[in-house]
Amino acid sequence: MPAQVNNADESLEVAVVGGGIIGLAVTCGLVHRGIRVKLYEQAQAFGAVGAGIAFTACAQKCMELLNPAILRAFWDAGAVPLSSAAGSGDPNDYLRWVDGYNRHEGHESHWQKPLYEVNAGAKGFVAVRRDEFANNLIKLLPESAFELRKRLVDITDEDDVYRKRLVFSDGTSALADAVIGCDGIKSKVRELILGTDNPASYPTYTHVAAYRTVIPMEVAIKILGERKAKTFNNHVGPGANLLHYAVSNQSLVNITAFVTDPEEWPDHQKLTADDGSREELENVFAKYNPTLVDLISVLPDKIGKWAIFDLGEYPVPAFNKGQIVLAGDAAHASAPQHGAGAGIGMEDALCIVVLLDALRQSIREGRVKGAAGRSDAVAKAFVAFDAVRRTRCQWFVNSSRRITELHQQKDWGVPGKLLKAETCFEEIKDRSHKIWFFDYHGMLEDAISHFKSALSN
Amino acid sequence: MPAQVNNADESLEVAVVGGGIIGLAVTCGLVHRGIRVKLYEQAQAFGAVGAGIAFTACAQKCMELLNPAILRAFWDAGAVPLSSAAGSGDPNDYLRWVDGYNRHEGHESHWQKPLYEVNAGAKGFVAVRRDEFANNLIKLLPESAFELRKRLVDITDEDDVYRKRLVFSDGTSALADAVIGCDGIKSKVRELILGTDNPASYPTYTHVAAYRTVIPMEVAIKILGERKAKTFNNHVGPGANLLHYAVSNQSLVNITAFVTDPEEWPDHQKLTADDGSREELENVFAKYNPTLVDLISVLPDKIGKWAIFDLGEYPVPAFNKGQIVLAGDAAHASAPQHGAGAGIGMEDALCIVVLLDALRQSIREGRVKGAAGRSDAVAKAFVAFDAVRRTRCQWFVNSSRRITELHQQKDWGVPGKLLKAETCFEEIKDRSHKIWFFDYHGMLEDAISHFKSALSN
Repeated sequence: MPAQVNNADESLEVAVVGGGIIGLAVTCGLVHRGIRVKLYEQAQAFGAVGAGIAFTACAQKCMELLNPAILRAFWDAGAVPLSSAAGSGDPNDYLRWVDGYNRHEGHESHWQKPLYEVNAGAKGFVAVRRDEFANNLIKLLPESAFELRKRLVDITDEDDVYRKRLVFSDGTSALADAVIGCDGIKSKVRELILGTDNPASYPTYTHVAAYRTVIPMEVAIKILGERKAKTFNNHVGPGANLLHYAVSNQSLVNITAFVTDPEEWPDHQKLTADDGSREELENVFAKYNPTLVDLISVLPDKIGKWAIFDLGEYPVPAFNKGQIVLAGDAAHASAPQHGAGAGIGMEDALCIVVLLDALRQSIREGRVKGAAGRSDAVAKAFVAFDAVRRTRCQWFVNSSRRITELHQQKDWGVPGKLLKAETCFEEIKDRSHKIWFFDYHGMLEDAISHFKSALSN
Repeated sequence: MPAQVNNADESLEVAVVGGGIIGLAVTCGLVHRGIRVKLYEQAQAFGAVGAGIAFTACAQKCMELLNPAILRAFWDAGAVPLSSAAGSGDPNDYLRWVDGYNRHEGHESHWQKPLYEVNAGAKGFVAVRRDEFANNLIKLLPESAFELRKRLVDITDEDDVYRKRLVFSDGTSALADAVIGCDGIKSKVRELILGTDNPASYPTYTHVAAYRTVIPMEVAIKILGERKAKTFNNHVGPGANLLHYAVSNQSLVNITAFVTDPEEWPDHQKLTADDGSREELENVFAKYNPTLVDLISVLPDKIGKWAIFDLGEYPVPAFNKGQIVLAGDAAHASAPQHGAGAGIGMEDALCIVVLLDALRQSIREGRVKGAAGRSDAVAKAFVAFDAVRRTRCQWFVNSSRRITELHQQKDWGVPGKLLKAETCFEEIKDRSHKIWFFDYHGMLEDAISHFKSALSN
């Protein structure tokens, strides 16, 4: 059987660490291309947490290029355009911003000034429940492509076979030519490649807490009016902002409030708090426009509260180290104010899969030979990934912080400064466009060209 | 002679207030199109102050479209690409950023880490002495096109002729269908249209002071090395940054230091200080990289010091009011960190001139009739100007403040935060590109389309 073992194509073996959306998407993309891959998930079952995530048209194209079945899985999971006004005949998704703070002369007290809107295009901003999308992605994988209850504790070198050994907490281990860390904001892979002494191994608190809950649509309509209740609206104000959009076939309205918090977060291991309450939000929004005061008054007593941590304070110096690479939140966890973090991760997934496909092609064509050649080529593919992705991804982390600042400018609370505060929207539009209308084809061309040029040296 | 008076073409008369670069460019553009114009300048002679100003390739195209003679006047005034490395064979201009603060391990103490560069293209960033450029522009004007010693004190209505009356401090006055305020950061026209009670009538201190001086090239080379001395370099650091570029046929190096200043500026009427000194800069830059310490040690004892004021704190609510419009610094005075303020003003100039040309065409074609029709059409042209220009210009004011923040991040002074600080350059590149690679054709099309649609209503 040595001939079979030496079959160059069969012999490239990829390990994916972490079974969240990005880990699943990478695995589906590799399976689709017939590349041998195994996904290792620490939990007993796949069960993505978190309510909803949104994907732009660009992220949807990346899904399709990864594997057309991913895009079908997305729509089959009940994905819905986030903000196309039902029945309006306009097929486009809009993000809208309204003045959440001030009362305006010549209007009744609940009137809110519309501030800005950005058109994301048809199906340009589509939300899905994270767990339902993940469940559909798992169905795309053969059983041989994943293992559960595998908590990574170390990655070691196996010099004789030029492979990395993944060591799990249950005492088992596995070999792979390439390791892709998709293990999220608290990534173990990141800690292993950067070291426990490096502050870039760990996320830090952005001093913003997010409160999330849902209310029935009919309650929301009474307070917000039908048009506002059924579309995406971001209510901005000094030190806090609140956004909402319809979910569950427009029967519910998902509400998220972001509140700046000067305190330290008590426990870096536990990013959710059990004590989030309506009362906290009532205090934060007490002086806001009466519409928000009314909206908060109908929220449940207890409200889920999350600490927003990110990798902005100590950016990861490189997304790659030899045959290991980081993708998604593991590489660039960010605050959720752009609503596009998962989409940026989908760009990562596409880029890695296309690079590994090019590598497999080079093996087939005999330009990459033997285990040592394969190991070297994997490292070069991941250098190319870092070269084309890191700048954009770390820009995105910074931009998410910046958007929070703009949404929560203190000037929103000073009537004489409202004009000044409003001049921020040109920047918000530019930042949104940079995310939404990304040239993913150009990214793939750059990555392949970078990789091929490294291979030929 | 009534037939002549009714000659629609002859009867459009434009007044330009202020004989700086933008006022002169607007006037040259109107003269070129045979539109009757008079420029009113308060000084006894044209004599623009300020050392150098830079124009991007985009701004140069705007000059050419205004009047090809403007572009020739620009080059004839000794304009030179700001940063094409002499003798390198590379025709492109680059802006470069270097670490002005830290010493770097493994390098001698004067070594400065190159941080980033942006390619502005061939002749993409070209500097000229403001006074020499202005002198050449004046030569393009017939004597009948300007009057000196005309300090504007009021603009009043002349309802019977549907014109505005400009009232000067010498007791004289003049009539015009359209008034263009190009009277700079302390614009009287702005004060007149907004009112003395409106804070937007006046610029405010950005809490940054600029120190400007020149040193001989040979002195600069000894400290900076030849390549750095002959090109544009911006040395960034916490709370202050210093930039320099070669001028006067590379015989001198122009140095500007920007220093954040928490104090109030003593006198809002006097934006230059007589007491700027090398000693002040020695204190500010004491802990910076030894290269900067050495550079500052060779500066003259007394150094020109300017307060940077802008219109960012209270943005002008509209650039137009009836038959009056603001352009250039009068509309959007900004901090000079982008080095592109005059270029943005050149876009204004082109937009106004093309709109007034379209208006003149409408008069010729009989679609605008009589003095009342003309007055109404001028106001509509200026509404169109405000619609296509204000967002970009006020973005530019904010962006200039933001660039200052990025250049002077406190993180530059914390070695463990250097990687974080460096992630700012993707944003700096995006902002530079938005300024440099502006779609001025699209702007003109939007302006004309806006104007024609207003005319036909």
